[in-house]
Formats: sequence, structure tokens, C-alpha cells
Amino acid sequence: MKVKSLGEFGLIDRLTKILRIDDPDVVVGFGDDCACVNLDGKLMLFTGDIQLENHHFIKGKIKPEDLGWKLVSINVSDIVACGGKPRWGFISIGIPESTEYSFIEGVYKGMNDALDRYGFSVIGGNTTSSEEIILDLFLVGETERFVPRGGAEEGEVILLSGFTGCSRAGLELLLMDRESYEDFEMRLIEKHTRPEARYDLQNLIQRYARSCIDISDGLVGDLSHIQKMSGVKLVIEKDKLPVDPDLERFCKKYGKDIYDYILYGGEDYQLVFTVNKQDTEKFKDCFKIGYTEKGSGIFIKDEKGLKPLKERGFEHL
Amino acid sequence: MKVKSLGEFGLIDRLTKILRIDDPDVVVGFGDDCACVNLDGKLMLFTGDIQLENHHFIKGKIKPEDLGWKLVSINVSDIVACGGKPRWGFISIGIPESTEYSFIEGVYKGMNDALDRYGFSVIGGNTTSSEEIILDLFLVGETERFVPRGGAEEGEVILLSGFTGCSRAGLELLLMDRESYEDFEMRLIEKHTRPEARYDLQNLIQRYARSCIDISDGLVGDLSHIQKMSGVKLVIEKDKLPVDPDLERFCKKYGKDIYDYILYGGEDYQLVFTVNKQDTEKFKDCFKIGYTEKGSGIFIKDEKGLKPLKERGFEHL
Ligand SMILES: Nc1ncnc2c1ncn2[C@@H]1O[C@H](COP(=O)(O)OP(=O)(O)O)[C@@H](O)[C@H]1O
Ligand SMILES: Nc1ncnc2c1ncn2[C@@H]1O[C@H](COP(=O)(O)OP(=O)(O)O)[C@@H](O)[C@H]1O
Ligand SMILES: Cc1ncc(C[n+]2csc(CCOP(=O)(O)OP(=O)(O)O)c2C)c(N)n1
Ligand SMILES: Cc1ncc(C[n+]2csc(CCOP(=O)(O)OP(=O)(O)O)c2C)c(N)n1
Repeated sequence: MKVKSLGEFGLIDRLTKILRIDDPDVVVGFGDDCACVNLDGKLMLFTGDIQLENHHFIKGKIKPEDLGWKLVSINVSDIVACGGKPRWGFISIGIPESTEYSFIEGVYKGMNDALDRYGFSVIGGNTTSSEEIILDLFLVGETERFVPRGGAEEGEVILLSGFTGCSRAGLELLLMDRESYEDFEMRLIEKHTRPEARYDLQNLIQRYARSCIDISDGLVGDLSHIQKMSGVKLVIEKDKLPVDPDLERFCKKYGKDIYDYILYGGEDYQLVFTVNKQDTEKFKDCFKIGYTEKGSGIFIKDEKGLKPLKERGFEHL
Repeated sequence: MKVKSLGEFGLIDRLTKILRIDDPDVVVGFGDDCACVNLDGKLMLFTGDIQLENHHFIKGKIKPEDLGWKLVSINVSDIVACGGKPRWGFISIGIPESTEYSFIEGVYKGMNDALDRYGFSVIGGNTTSSEEIILDLFLVGETERFVPRGGAEEGEVILLSGFTGCSRAGLELLLMDRESYEDFEMRLIEKHTRPEARYDLQNLIQRYARSCIDISDGLVGDLSHIQKMSGVKLVIEKDKLPVDPDLERFCKKYGKDIYDYILYGGEDYQLVFTVNKQDTEKFKDCFKIGYTEKGSGIFIKDEKGLKPLKERGFEHL
């Protein structure tokens, strides 16, 4: 049996069953955005995310500075999704011998900019030669409260921290291999190449979110983790979903269905989370996109009523 | 300028200068086997090491169980070299879609065996598709005293925890692509495919070693880090170097210079360290292979006198 036929999540399921965790200090093991350990009363978070050439980026289509920035941001995003702050990073790189030094230098400069922005340091690393560029970052963070994927209960409000779909549109524009782009297209491309982790929400998420996940694989794909792990029904109100004006122009220009992007586009690194009704107003710039109910499944509600959403998201395998 | 022309260590030097560490809790940043942070009085260690297909192993020439075991062991080795115990691991994998599930299952079973042996857990991971198999492990450890590469002073004894050179002989045997091997050859191959981290020495290293490094790139290559970072002269006594009988047979059979293997063969994951004279006897099973003096450089001493050793070791670039 090939791993492809298991799918990414089928594979992870099997592999994590082989690794028995036998340690009373482990608060959260597999299954969330971060693992969490209790170190003498401190909750430490662990996460890691890779940027692999031709799978996550194409050299020549992203500035090395942006790539370094993105690598840090997507990892910080997982830490914030669990309520925490990043503390230390460790980077493992693989690099073909023929790579220009200026490329990897740019990656590190972009990383350093992001580290300054999010306020922590990468303190170690490992270097090897490889066929394709490998940038694998591991972060340790800290939180006062672990916010899980599985914490949603009925009667909560579903909040979304910003626009989704833009990153996928940006990627598609990049892959068109054009000489020049319109201004709104450049903005979409930048959403893809230089995402921002929602570190600005860290404190509020830590205090008030009942469940949270960051959106790497698409809004519905990632919501389905909250849905399954929480065991509640999620209802998304279609007219509450925020629509980015640039994405609107993109979809008009290229004849695309905008909800395909908003619901299923990946790599926006916004947060989607649930809160108690009375805490909703604390998240001023976030969008109330729906609510939780007793039951299961993810539904979209429009003028015609409730429809189950197809639960697909980006999978590596 | 291509990265190849900088060499692995030249590249690391430049990259680590870009990443400014600005955090009073960081006790040791770049330049040692592990990074070290002070977390409310606890010294936490960070390390990571990768096994990359065709660069660190060849599929079909190593059992997946051995590969998983090796991945864990080489990482534990770095933690022990700093005096510490491994606490938690995080694994990042890249896997081609066409890989048989049984292969990666074997890797995880081997990892789990090693985790049982060294007494800790891998608690999270990340999965992506890739062209070649990537197994990248990060460990967090803990120590009561950080044992640095740069702690050696004049007048200390250099100790080596076991035989070196066997792993490289094992690799060369594997690469001969033979149908069958003699028993002693199989033992050498196993030294390569299933190294053991010297976790048994952890407590003694933590207490008594003044400087320490684990031998991944070859005895002289790794000693040169102790030499440079400590600013002392190292004298190796040729007749004190332990000679593995299987390696001796190998070198006779294939007409090889055994000291080329002992001094420059990599991936044995033994420890080489310095201790004060009065502490030497505590390390019963280790070999006293030399001593430190005021000065600089690494020298080998035989009946003819002192000769500087060529400071080469395995480099990825
Ligand atoms: N790509 C990298 N980025 C940042 N630091 C690195 C990188 N590669 C190696 N380092 C750091 O450089 C030092 C030396 O690394 P190395 O010689 O590979 O150690 P080891 O042999 O123990 O793996 C270590 O402190 C390591 O953390
Ligand atoms: N190869 C792996 N080995 C062990 N655990 C893994 C592996 N890949 C993913 N995991 C774990 O599975 C869970 C889900 O991973 P994933 O959906 O990739 O999270 P994220 O989208 O936040 O990166 C996480 O808890 C992660 O730690
Ligand atoms: C060349 C290229 N092809 C495809 C994609 C699309 N893509 C790659 S990874 C990904 C989803 C995020 O995956 P990952 O970063 O591995 O995060 P995780 O799911 O582990 O959180 C998407 C949509 C891309 N960014 N670049
Ligand atoms: C196919 C193959 N080619 C070459 C080698 C030899 N080799 C690969 S890595 C290495 C040295 C150790 O390097 P690494 O594991 O990256 O450890 P580090 O130097 O980072 O501690 C050696 C001798 C091998 N094991 N397999």
C-alpha cells in the first residue's frame, strides 16, 4: 500500500498511533496545532512547519526575503492558534551545492525581519546538502492557557480574523508566469508570499477563545478539525463571510467562483475560532461568520436554507 | 558565489551572524552541539538532526527500523554531549507519494524502540510530500550543567567513549552492493545503521566533563571544534587510540590505512571529552587518548614524536 492512498491525515493517524506517548508532563500530544507540555507549571508549546522547494514555493517566484518571512510567520501562526507566544526557534536547512549564497542570505534576512516583528530568536540550526531547498523551522512557545481545536461547545459564535482566499488567488497568479501584473493582483500575490501571523490577537485568543485553528489548508478544511474534535455542529452564514475586494476583482476577471476561494483556498494564516456570545465584542476587527449548535457536520446557510459543506482541504498526500 | 564554495562551516558562520539573538534567557546560542535556554532556572537544550535520502542513507540499504532508530540516536547523542537528557521530540517528515506505507511504518517502529530505550516521547510532527525521504527530528532536553565544546583548559585528559572508524567502514561495505557479507562485516555495517547514543554516560558527562562533543563528522574533525572553541592544544597519543578488531580485519582485507578510519571516519556517535586528571578514573570504560596543553592545534604523538593532524572532517558542502 502506497502512502498516497492513505492521504495525509490517514497517514498521520497511523503514524501517531505507533508513537506511544508515555509522559505525565505532556498536556497535549498529537492532534492539535501545537503539542503542549507542562514544565513545572509553565505550559510550553511545540510546533514545526516546513517550506519545501516545488511543494511550498517555487524558486524564482518568491523573493528569498519573503520566503524567510513566510517560514517564520506560518509557524508563529500555529503558536498563536493555541493561545501562545513564540519563544525560541530552531531551523534545519537542506541546500543544493549550486545554490547562490545570496539566495539563502535573503531567506535569513527575511527570517530575521519576522523574528524582530514577532519578538523572539532562532537560536540553533542544522545544515545539510540536498536536491531541493528544505527550510524546516521548529518553534517552542509559551501560553497561560492552551486553546485546543476541540474546545467548541454549542451556543458559541464562530469568528474569523480576516479575509480568506486571497493567498490561493495569489499563488494562481504567480503560476501564470506573467511579465507584469495589475496592482490588485500584486496585492494578492503579496498575501501569498508574505502572510502575516495574527500575533496581534494572541492575548485575546489566550483569554477568550474556546477553540481555535489557523487556516493553512482552507477555511472549511481547517474548520472540519474544530468540528470533529469538538463534536459540535458548525453553521457558517454565507453573507457574513468577509469578501476581499481584490479577490472579487480577481474572480470577475478570471471567471472564478469566489466562494470556492473563500471556503477552500489555503495559506491565508488567518485564525478561525469560537467564543462565548458575551465575549464576541472583544474581537473588534474579526468577523462573526457563524455559530455552533448541538449536532455534527459543517453547514452553510444562505437565503435558501442550510446546506452541508463539502469537507475538503489541502492535503499533501 | 555558490554555497559550495563557502563550505558547510563557512555558510553556517555567515548565516548565524544574520540571526541576531537578543534574549537574556539564551545561555548558549550558535556554535555548540545544542542551544541552551534558561527557563526559570531550568537549563533546556535544543538540537535537531536530519536523515535525508541519498545524503544520509540509501533506501534499500538500511532497514526502516534501523533508520528510525538511528534518527533518534544521533539526536540524543547531541543532547548527551551537552550533559543532558532528552525530554521531548518533534518530527518533521517529507515523503514521496509512491512510498510504501510499510517503509515509513518501519521507521516509526524503530523510532519508538529508540524512544523506549532513551526514555522520552515524540509528541508532535509535520507531514509533507517530497521528492526524497526527509526525516528531520528536533529534540528538547534538560541538563543541570551545560557542558560546552569550548570548556577545555590546559592540563586535562582527553577521553574517548569507544571505537571510531567502524561506521565509515560499514558504510563502505554497504556501498559495495554485495550479495553477502562475512560476520565481522555485518557487525561493522550494524555500527553504521544502528548506532547507539552514549546515554549511559549522561550523568558522568554532566558532572565531570569540562568540554565534550559527539563524533558525527570524524574524531579529528570534531576534536577541532573543541580545540578552536577552547583555545588549547590537543595531543592525541597514537598508541592509546582504541582499535576495533573488526575494523582491523576490514582494513587488512581491503588494504586500507586503519588510522584514516579511526581519525577521520564519521557517524560513530561516540563522545570525545576532556576531564580534570583526578576525575579520569570515574570513566571506567572510556579510553584516555591524550591530553591538553597550553597552545593551539591538534597533534598526534607516536614513537617518532609530535605531528600536527590534518584537520579535515565530513562536510555537507
Ligand atoms: N542552518 C543553520 N542555521 C542556524 N544555525 C545553524 C545552522 N546550521 C548549524 N547551525 C548551528 O551551528 C552550530 C554548529 O552546527 P553543527 O556543526 O552542524 O553541529 P552538530 O555537528 O552538532 O550538528 C550549532 O550551534 C548549530 O545550532
Ligand atoms: N509525521 C508526523 N508524525 C507525528 N505527528 C505528526 C506528523 N504529522 C503531523 N503530526 C501531528 O498531527 C497533528 C495534525 O497535524 P497537521 O494537521 O499537519 O497540523 P497543522 O496543520 O497545524 O500543521 C498535529 O498534532 C501534529 O503534531
Ligand atoms: C508550488 C506550490 N504548490 C502548491 C502550493 C499550495 N500549498 C502548499 S502547502 C499548502 C497548505 C499548507 O500546508 P503546510 O504549509 O504544510 O501547512 P500545514 O497543513 O502543515 O499546517 C498549500 C495550499 C504552494 N504554496 N506552492
Ligand atoms: C548515502 C550516504 N552517503 C554518505 C554518508 C556519510 N555521511 C552522511 S552525514 C555524515 C556526517 C554526519 O552528518 P550529520 O548527520 O548531518 O550530522 P552533523 O554533522 O549535523 O552532526 C556522514 C559521514 C552516509 N551516511 N550515507
